[in-house]
Amino acid sequence: MRDLTQVSPKQIRNLIRKGKWDQPTAGLAMGYAQANLVILPEKYAFDFLLFCQRNPKPCPLLEVLEPGEHRTEFLSSDADIRTDLPRYNIYRKGRLEGTVKEIKNIWENDFVTFLLGCSFSFEEALLRSKIPVRHIEEKRNVPMFISSIPCKPSGVFYGPMVVTMRPIPPDKVSRAVQITSRYASVHGAPVHIGDPSKIGIKNLKKPDFGDPVTIKKGEVPVFWACGVTPQVVVMKAKPDLCITHTPGHMFISDLLNEELANL
Amino acid sequence: MRDLTQVSPKQIRNLIRKGKWDQPTAGLAMGYAQANLVILPEKYAFDFLLFCQRNPKPCPLLEVLEPGEHRTEFLSSDADIRTDLPRYNIYRKGRLEGTVKEIKNIWENDFVTFLLGCSFSFEEALLRSKIPVRHIEEKRNVPMFISSIPCKPSGVFYGPMVVTMRPIPPDKVSRAVQITSRYASVHGAPVHIGDPSKIGIKNLKKPDFGDPVTIKKGEVPVFWACGVTPQVVVMKAKPDLCITHTPGHMFISDLLNEELANL
Repeated sequence: MRDLTQVSPKQIRNLIRKGKWDQPTAGLAMGYAQANLVILPEKYAFDFLLFCQRNPKPCPLLEVLEPGEHRTEFLSSDADIRTDLPRYNIYRKGRLEGTVKEIKNIWENDFVTFLLGCSFSFEEALLRSKIPVRHIEEKRNVPMFISSIPCKPSGVFYGPMVVTMRPIPPDKVSRAVQITSRYASVHGAPVHIGDPSKIGIKNLKKPDFGDPVTIKKGEVPVFWACGVTPQVVVMKAKPDLCITHTPGHMFISDLLNEELANL
Repeated sequence: MRDLTQVSPKQIRNLIRKGKWDQPTAGLAMGYAQANLVILPEKYAFDFLLFCQRNPKPCPLLEVLEPGEHRTEFLSSDADIRTDLPRYNIYRKGRLEGTVKEIKNIWENDFVTFLLGCSFSFEEALLRSKIPVRHIEEKRNVPMFISSIPCKPSGVFYGPMVVTMRPIPPDKVSRAVQITSRYASVHGAPVHIGDPSKIGIKNLKKPDFGDPVTIKKGEVPVFWACGVTPQVVVMKAKPDLCITHTPGHMFISDLLNEELANL
């Protein structure tokens, strides 16, 4: 296998399109933004778009395609959303029906595609500033928790905010806030710093999704809004059909993480 | 008349609701954010919401209400959008039909309300940093130009970006960029700095809307995306019905401008 960390997004999407890569995308095409995918039939699209507008931290929209459109414009000029992700989850009425490698055969002309920012982008910026990212050091998935922070509802969509936790040395917490604030389109600044019980989290060793990580003495648990939130919220609403990326198997865009930074 | 610059947003909205104030709102309730209003029937709502998502600089959404909802939640907990603005414009098929002081009698259960940020908020921040705002000094309306910068279209909505121009002393241009960058939800950083012809503007003395202002020797024309853009775009699309605020007669929110700043 070639080293895909230095290969261009276009080349990787080509491999994926031809069925030659169906693995997770973490670390591929370093420096380029990856995106979460949610596809819904048009009748749910206004409510979900409004849900994202009302909850920009867990649901930072990078691009929304018009009904039936499967080519991106902003994130790439040559991508096809039906074939260019390694794996897709198909949900009917909120239940996972299966996982597939392309969705051309089930595509409908009323499908609306939402692409949302992913924390990979700001983690790269944290590492560049020598702020430790524990789950990367420990080669685990980031720990995720269902918090007691409610999202603002919209139409059929409602639910709690899912958050990720990263333990940060106390002298670097302020810098971590500054750095991630620059990335408003990929979850932005933390939603909570410190005592997990204040946001309804009982045990940091038992995440609801992902893996637990080591918290060293004195380190502060810092919580960011998580891109799993829209998936949890969509599943609760039980739409007739919903297609998402399979967790970890993201869309790789032509946009540099740095192009997403606001300041 | 009382000095309304120091009166609370709630008190001013009460005066407006009772028909006791139908004048422009510039300068009222100093420090509080004011908002542009666009109301459209539900069948246009997804396209317009997506237009705003794609064009956040000219169309910075502060709040969107669900179909039929006329009470705000984020911008105020006790405002009624049908009565709390001093004047409304009613457009049918893109033509101005009339100007009214309330819209209770024509309200329909499928109306979707969009409230968009307004440059009043960042002008206050510029003035606080001793950056001159010429049209305020000269007691004029800000000069606005139809630029050659295209908005990203969405469904029936398309058109050029309208921009405002403020002449800035050369040693303060960088600072003006920094300050307005903080206010992403009220047009944010400039879209162009310097030579007007580069964005299709022929004559700074002949704005398309508003008034011309003095440009002193050496001052740099700086251009920001303008909240008139969505109105121009909506009028071009000729929807059956559209209700907006009458220019200058804005919604006064309970949110401080400072609460809208990102960093």
